Amino acid sequence: MGNHVPNTTVQRLPSYLRCLIDEQSHGVAVANSVRIAELAGTNAAQVRKDLSYLGEYGMRGIGYDVDGLVKHLTRWLGLEHVRRAAIIGYGRLGSALLGYGGFQDRGVSIEAVFDVDPQKIGTRTDSGLTVAPLSELESRVAADNIEIAILTVPAGVAQQVVDQVAAAGIKAVLNFAPAKLNVPEGVAVRQADVAAELQILSFHLSSGGEPRGGCGK
Amino acid sequence: MGNHVPNTTVQRLPSYLRCLIDEQSHGVAVANSVRIAELAGTNAAQVRKDLSYLGEYGMRGIGYDVDGLVKHLTRWLGLEHVRRAAIIGYGRLGSALLGYGGFQDRGVSIEAVFDVDPQKIGTRTDSGLTVAPLSELESRVAADNIEIAILTVPAGVAQQVVDQVAAAGIKAVLNFAPAKLNVPEGVAVRQADVAAELQILSFHLSSGGEPRGGCGK
Repeated sequence: MGNHVPNTTVQRLPSYLRCLIDEQSHGVAVANSVRIAELAGTNAAQVRKDLSYLGEYGMRGIGYDVDGLVKHLTRWLGLEHVRRAAIIGYGRLGSALLGYGGFQDRGVSIEAVFDVDPQKIGTRTDSGLTVAPLSELESRVAADNIEIAILTVPAGVAQQVVDQVAAAGIKAVLNFAPAKLNVPEGVAVRQADVAAELQILSFHLSSGGEPRGGCGK
Repeated sequence: MGNHVPNTTVQRLPSYLRCLIDEQSHGVAVANSVRIAELAGTNAAQVRKDLSYLGEYGMRGIGYDVDGLVKHLTRWLGLEHVRRAAIIGYGRLGSALLGYGGFQDRGVSIEAVFDVDPQKIGTRTDSGLTVAPLSELESRVAADNIEIAILTVPAGVAQQVVDQVAAAGIKAVLNFAPAKLNVPEGVAVRQADVAAELQILSFHLSSGGEPRGGCGK
């Protein structure tokens, strides 16, 4: 499923899901596209178009059933079961992400952490994981059913690490290293780009406008 | 300027800029919307529409002048001069971001770091900054012309910290705390949302598709 959903739509789905869960927690049963757009910081026509790709058209003149839409978005995002992820690179950023703790209730659980530094291998993280040698990646991926790799390694080694990640059978990579990665077909890479967020803020400083988005995005 | 550019367009501008700078570094002089879309992971019609908001229409049948478009995007994003930012919260994430070093060539420079912990105040970061007490925020913002605050504080104190940030006159906030922030009108907040990136990867795992975007996003 899902091959015909545009990437630009996919990128908005997590934000819709988050905003709708927020509405749900406030006891809201129905939300129209105007409201969802307001929360997620887009426009109503875009919301209707995005959700129509998922076969969700809402009730004319009323809106979308919030519970139903949350379930549907969760299924489309493949989050009915928790996805298992590994952090590769136990430096400051890797350790900060391990300590973050906000992933589990968004459908992702960090189950392993790898490094190549003998000083770090074998140490225990605050979250109770033991740092494993990168050489064990392939066997651990298979044994622990790890589907996502979060790369927090220096830019200079990112390509060689992602080669190992792909060879280990991982099909989804979130890359924090400021480096362009080449991966085999079938492997999805997302670039975590903090600088882009700062540039968007710079736009708003210049324009005097401000990003909308009451549910925090 | 810029009030009439849709937020959804603004969010794509950093990616266009990054991809075009990448093309520029490879000596490419002209890029059409198909090529830009391929690099940035969107579609050609979207690229043309986004750039038309900036008054850029390209040369029919040829494309956009890369140098000119880079300059234009830089100006629209308000990045002709480097924006000065402060990190608030010198924990693992704050320290990881300070060590990142990839902001300056994207138009943002981290000029100060604040914390409330007496153990941290006065210590020197690897990047040569001295951790300042949060109580000095207002005076430092004025003296150092700081325009952007990067919040890397625990979720439980994020609202009270952003209140201080807004009171100090900062109009742009990048929030890493998993907390919904209320800010006065005129203050722009962006939520750094690593979980959303992981959910997008989860979609691609489910659908078997993969995000396009040859320049790394």
